[in-house]
Amino acid sequence: MRSLDSLFKPKSIALVGAAHTQEKLGGVILKNLLSFRGDIYPVNPKYTELMGLKAYLSVKEIPKPVDLCIIMRPAPEVPEIIEELKGRVRFAIVMSSGFAETGEVALQEDVKRIAKETGIRILGPNCMGIYNPHEKLDTFFLPHERLKRPKKGNVAIVSQSGAILSCVLGAVRAANTGVSKVAGYGNAIDINESDIYEYLSDDRKTDVIVSYIESVSDGRRFIEKARILSEKKSLLILKSGKGPSGQAAAFSHTGRLAGRYEVFHSLLRQFGIMEVMDFDELMDATKALSYYLSMPPLSKGGIRGGGNRVCIITNGGGSGVLAADECMRQGLEVPQLTDVQRERIGRLFPHFYGINNPVDLTAQVKDEDYALALNEFKDDYDGFLMIALPNVYGITEGLGKIMNGAVKELRKPVVFNVAEGGISKKISDLLEKSKIPVYTSPERAVRGLKALLG
Amino acid sequence: MRSLDSLFKPKSIALVGAAHTQEKLGGVILKNLLSFRGDIYPVNPKYTELMGLKAYLSVKEIPKPVDLCIIMRPAPEVPEIIEELKGRVRFAIVMSSGFAETGEVALQEDVKRIAKETGIRILGPNCMGIYNPHEKLDTFFLPHERLKRPKKGNVAIVSQSGAILSCVLGAVRAANTGVSKVAGYGNAIDINESDIYEYLSDDRKTDVIVSYIESVSDGRRFIEKARILSEKKSLLILKSGKGPSGQAAAFSHTGRLAGRYEVFHSLLRQFGIMEVMDFDELMDATKALSYYLSMPPLSKGGIRGGGNRVCIITNGGGSGVLAADECMRQGLEVPQLTDVQRERIGRLFPHFYGINNPVDLTAQVKDEDYALALNEFKDDYDGFLMIALPNVYGITEGLGKIMNGAVKELRKPVVFNVAEGGISKKISDLLEKSKIPVYTSPERAVRGLKALLG
Repeated sequence: MRSLDSLFKPKSIALVGAAHTQEKLGGVILKNLLSFRGDIYPVNPKYTELMGLKAYLSVKEIPKPVDLCIIMRPAPEVPEIIEELKGRVRFAIVMSSGFAETGEVALQEDVKRIAKETGIRILGPNCMGIYNPHEKLDTFFLPHERLKRPKKGNVAIVSQSGAILSCVLGAVRAANTGVSKVAGYGNAIDINESDIYEYLSDDRKTDVIVSYIESVSDGRRFIEKARILSEKKSLLILKSGKGPSGQAAAFSHTGRLAGRYEVFHSLLRQFGIMEVMDFDELMDATKALSYYLSMPPLSKGGIRGGGNRVCIITNGGGSGVLAADECMRQGLEVPQLTDVQRERIGRLFPHFYGINNPVDLTAQVKDEDYALALNEFKDDYDGFLMIALPNVYGITEGLGKIMNGAVKELRKPVVFNVAEGGISKKISDLLEKSKIPVYTSPERAVRGLKALLG
Repeated sequence: MRSLDSLFKPKSIALVGAAHTQEKLGGVILKNLLSFRGDIYPVNPKYTELMGLKAYLSVKEIPKPVDLCIIMRPAPEVPEIIEELKGRVRFAIVMSSGFAETGEVALQEDVKRIAKETGIRILGPNCMGIYNPHEKLDTFFLPHERLKRPKKGNVAIVSQSGAILSCVLGAVRAANTGVSKVAGYGNAIDINESDIYEYLSDDRKTDVIVSYIESVSDGRRFIEKARILSEKKSLLILKSGKGPSGQAAAFSHTGRLAGRYEVFHSLLRQFGIMEVMDFDELMDATKALSYYLSMPPLSKGGIRGGGNRVCIITNGGGSGVLAADECMRQGLEVPQLTDVQRERIGRLFPHFYGINNPVDLTAQVKDEDYALALNEFKDDYDGFLMIALPNVYGITEGLGKIMNGAVKELRKPVVFNVAEGGISKKISDLLEKSKIPVYTSPERAVRGLKALLG
């Protein structure tokens, strides 16, 4: 199989359906392509120039072969356009909708047949295309002012749905992390999730893969590629279309049958492939994994090493209880302190602190208490859940620096829940600069930690 | 039983343990009390004046009887302080910790016995006290600059834990809604959740009650009061201490046994009392209920009317599928369109829109499409879930105004999911001004809607 390099790292791009204004999707795409450093060939028979670039009557007029052609024209025109591409391009992204997802199955089959005949590999149709910040490549029809792109980072996004792709992009950015490669593959008549998994298993820039799936056409190949990818990287799968309503919705969305979810679910389980249940879980796990895996290799020892013993350190008793409940639901242990542990930590703190697991630092807390407790118990647990309610004066912005020092040599997963309000935004930003992921509720923090303890 | 009026609406307050500086919790409380419009009597033998108020040597020196005495002194001093209050105060809030939750069971029993003998009703110990914005009453030891209080509103908070109380306050504020009365009741040696439920069932300012519970001492009475309250208002219960770890944590937090969760859970179910499973669910439901119940009575017809048929209107196919999946998990129906419905709505929109349920307005969406679809189907469904990905130019800030008009006469629950990024904050704020709750993920929006459809 041909590598997907020319799709993710093309040297030249043609855009059929380029427009002069961002009021048209073809104009938004052209605008987004302007930062690309390779050759760009806008195609539109009505113009000789578009956004400062020479425009071409048709793809036949382009003087050189191009790596990638993006097609944003009404669906019925697409088969002919692809015929014209024969011998001229290696990959085509069909952005246009109006195929199987709207009942136009025959039209989609036409495109599929022609693509096979011409040897052109197709992403889509009805898809979002590619974003690769390392190549300044952005084929989306979403304007930057409406969807700011995340910075470069270690998260790859592989999404059948453009909507979810854009939501994940927004959430990755909000999580203060970044992306390596992003692909929206839509109706997947040719290139599908399995092909992209295969490509990403050797991608050194990617540590975490977020994969949103509505349907899979070749289940056996999917499981094989997902299994291989999971051995090398952290693959997170969100499968939608779980029940009849969702399946019907998925069908009318990409024109493919979602299949029986129970089968899918148990296969993932059987092969140890991580599955999340909803969008928030997906993003909570992504954040934890992205942060943890971006730390120096020294720190990677702990991840999914088999241990699941959690120490909870909190300044709010109730938040600690909610966290302990969620640990139970997630299959993580919160073992009671032994007498020896109790004595050890009791020596560090005033008698009115809650000397247990959760350790309750109470409203009398000071920043350094978190580091003291963490340090005392660093060898006794597999992961640490810290809860800071920054509504008392004892918690300050200094917490970020103190935790930075405390986790540096730790080699074990640490996540924070910082409750909303007051200085929490500042503290959270400082913690996240030290690669400690922060969540707004105890339960979401536990779900983040769960992704690291596996 | 004496009404809790003097607790929630005292005319005069003494503070034993008042301090001159906010470095001490007794100073933070005094500072927060300064906005109270009744009489305030700070008690501290070391001062003649505190924060501009005359200070008293002891409660015996206070010239008049007072409604409420707040005690913030070390636990061992509390029994004697309460003895001194005899005949002088009606209610006391014991803020201090260091009782059963740290193993000092005998000390707590002492306080309980003395309270009975003196006839003084006690809130606490180990509690947060009262916030009543209508009376400018704020007994919390949390400074305003660290925890901004929400505005006046229709949500009451009843929390055993001060931590969760403060987290709910922060989340209520973030949700652009407000509170009526707030009580943190801690170890509950006297006044407990049942007493406060009884008081709130007749409170005209309260529509929604958020109740965080770790343990209940009189299960029969709790169920009775919760049932009565649930018939008059929307009561949401979050019970923690669900498993062994959580129960142990809860015990060391308030010194009371959490009891078997399964029994608690099935009793709530049996009596139709709403229970949520975690902090995020609690806040998602609170937001939906608070918004919906604050609209003119005209609109209250729909709530929990028995119907559970949902129409999903989206401009992102994948988000619609995730929403449909979550509806299924929550027991809400997303019925397919009938041929007649399909024809009706097909007349309104271009052929490439997804004419189904979810209605998919695609990336070609315009603001007014949401109102068009909602209006066409307003009689066909019980609730509406709108999804807006504001990453295309067709969605603008005008959406807020259009939706305001569309929901005005609707009488049915409408919630929005607006994906993060770009102009989503502005759109969300405008929608929430029109009392339409907005959520950042499709699944959370469904959980909000679920609270309204019951």
